Amino acid sequence: MLTIEKIIHAQQVLKAATYKTDVIRASKLCNGCELWLKAENLQKTGSFKVRGAYYKISQLSEEEKRKGVIACSAGNHAQGVALAATNNGIKSLICLPAGAPISKVEATRAYGAQLCLVEGVYDDAYARALQLRDEHGYTFIHPFDDEDVIAGQGTIGLEIAEQIPDVDVVVVPIGGGGLIAGVAFALKATRPNVQVYGVQAEGAPSMKSALDRGEIGALSSVSTIADGIAVKRPGNLTYELCRKYVDGVVTVTDDETAAAILALLEKEKVVSEGAGAVPLAAMLAGKIPNTDGKKVCCLVSGGNIDVTILNRVITRGLIMQGRQCTLNIELLDKPGQLVEVSRIIADCGANVTGVHHEHAHAGSAVIGCFLRIDMETKNFEHIEIIKNRLTQAGFRIA
Amino acid sequence: MLTIEKIIHAQQVLKAATYKTDVIRASKLCNGCELWLKAENLQKTGSFKVRGAYYKISQLSEEEKRKGVIACSAGNHAQGVALAATNNGIKSLICLPAGAPISKVEATRAYGAQLCLVEGVYDDAYARALQLRDEHGYTFIHPFDDEDVIAGQGTIGLEIAEQIPDVDVVVVPIGGGGLIAGVAFALKATRPNVQVYGVQAEGAPSMKSALDRGEIGALSSVSTIADGIAVKRPGNLTYELCRKYVDGVVTVTDDETAAAILALLEKEKVVSEGAGAVPLAAMLAGKIPNTDGKKVCCLVSGGNIDVTILNRVITRGLIMQGRQCTLNIELLDKPGQLVEVSRIIADCGANVTGVHHEHAHAGSAVIGCFLRIDMETKNFEHIEIIKNRLTQAGFRIA
Repeated sequence: MLTIEKIIHAQQVLKAATYKTDVIRASKLCNGCELWLKAENLQKTGSFKVRGAYYKISQLSEEEKRKGVIACSAGNHAQGVALAATNNGIKSLICLPAGAPISKVEATRAYGAQLCLVEGVYDDAYARALQLRDEHGYTFIHPFDDEDVIAGQGTIGLEIAEQIPDVDVVVVPIGGGGLIAGVAFALKATRPNVQVYGVQAEGAPSMKSALDRGEIGALSSVSTIADGIAVKRPGNLTYELCRKYVDGVVTVTDDETAAAILALLEKEKVVSEGAGAVPLAAMLAGKIPNTDGKKVCCLVSGGNIDVTILNRVITRGLIMQGRQCTLNIELLDKPGQLVEVSRIIADCGANVTGVHHEHAHAGSAVIGCFLRIDMETKNFEHIEIIKNRLTQAGFRIA
Repeated sequence: MLTIEKIIHAQQVLKAATYKTDVIRASKLCNGCELWLKAENLQKTGSFKVRGAYYKISQLSEEEKRKGVIACSAGNHAQGVALAATNNGIKSLICLPAGAPISKVEATRAYGAQLCLVEGVYDDAYARALQLRDEHGYTFIHPFDDEDVIAGQGTIGLEIAEQIPDVDVVVVPIGGGGLIAGVAFALKATRPNVQVYGVQAEGAPSMKSALDRGEIGALSSVSTIADGIAVKRPGNLTYELCRKYVDGVVTVTDDETAAAILALLEKEKVVSEGAGAVPLAAMLAGKIPNTDGKKVCCLVSGGNIDVTILNRVITRGLIMQGRQCTLNIELLDKPGQLVEVSRIIADCGANVTGVHHEHAHAGSAVIGCFLRIDMETKNFEHIEIIKNRLTQAGFRIA
């Protein structure tokens, strides 16, 4: 059974192996509360996962350590297990789908793991991992449904209680539930009055569904930009702990998560992955109850976001703030039109980043053509000014 | 005259007003040395500038405080002066060019400054600031060539000496020279064996030119993505201090700076502006001498990068790593060609993000047309595989 003594023991074991990450005062993001971020994105391997993996591995018998460990993951758990095993001086084998992103594969290898690339999807890699475990006697390191793993993640709760002694509300992402189970247990044991809320992606609400229905089930599919918490079925242990110690679970949309990633980047200068940003997303969307005037800590669980995704998040954020814009302008097909449009846009102080010029297509007049202009703009008001100037000059904006 | 006692005094004054920012161990970025980052991008206002501004303002007479302060800046100095004045309970007026980025204008206003938007460029805003100073008796807060300002920035040197007691090399950005003057003075006074190197942008090497020539001059123009250090003329005080206490100055290109911004983002999960990334850029480019096996600290001076620029930096980084790619493919103008190309690309596992199809233009055959495909790819090897598959299928890649 999970006890506070076990979590305190994990904290002692982890002292030499992981960082006690900072809490950052996010004064530019609060809306009526005193907001803090627990920066596990600055943890070794870029996420909290190394805590649970390290503690779990440290508690194995000498015989188990001699044989080594195995895990199945293409994400943060893979890197956590790899580093934890290497730092414990034992062998690790990570099964992952052959199509996993190259950057994650290479990071896992760099932490000292042997890799087993399995054709197919996650479930195929998982089946192969269990098969290899049975054949070779490796210990399988579960990503969340394991008491030692949960105790390791729970050390974050002890740190928050120490770093923000009078914290009122702590908001935590939920995938399989290992992180929040440990954090909620640790907080309720040391600061019984703290409220602990969980946040899931709207497209992967497995724990929320289970708690709402009162029994564990599996979602048939999950879809979210927060890939670190795209889990179809919560754990048995974690479900029971959430039922007892978590005060509520809410969900956020991908757009809300993207806005939170951008806010962390722009206002607080830290990089978060999707899963790490869902607590802040829930706060910014006003979905966490009773936070007015309170001390609130959002756990930023990891920062391992693919920069391709980050680029898209920024682009979407710029469009949503009126700082990037595309206009489709109908032109008469005669000389000088492009000059005129370009001049108006330049006079307005917008920066053209792309131009596409197309002749007649279905729906346009025979003598007309279309000009598509991509621009960097200041805000929505600025876009309106440009549109008005173009319209006044006789151009039609589609 | 600048003394270590003054810097120690500044440290005491700043204790209640600014953060003692963390040093972060950047284990994924080192190449043969033990690399640390001093994270002033996580400082209040997102840059170190608030230190010098706060100390300067705290040392004004009651009469001067009653009249208020004025500064000219559209960047970090503006925000530093605004917050420092507000926290000292005095009035601040910031002159800035009317065309300054909206996000910076709003941030400065949010810190409590009154703004004076001046038509024209920086020099016009500067002239107006001096005029207003003379008319109203405001104290002008110089961004770098001021002993109190330099002492305030020097507190970073004391912190580095305390946080990394056996540091060997410290690398610092140079714009006007206020930051490095203070940091180098503080370090040489407390850790005489530490080497201090300065880094400028290749397109704005004002201090390097002055030191090389042995006299201060003004560059006729400056151009760099590191806008925080795009300074035409170094200060008189700062020049003398650099001459005495700085061991060398090197320059970096915009591409090197962009790569460093991306590395900080992807590997260390922190956001840096261009100026903040030039020390790491110099390290990664091997431009800082004698760092093998040494403890090196790169000062990340600020994180206030416009996300539009950040987006471009990421895009450029992706292209340079083979993770984003555009192919121009010549097609015969007959049905089914687009299907075939799309299928080959999909089979190779690339993700199409843009398609442009164009009919004959100058240089192409009458029966031909061009297809431009934008894709997300894994690496350069992946791009070659796709190109080969297309070529084998009879398509010509332009």
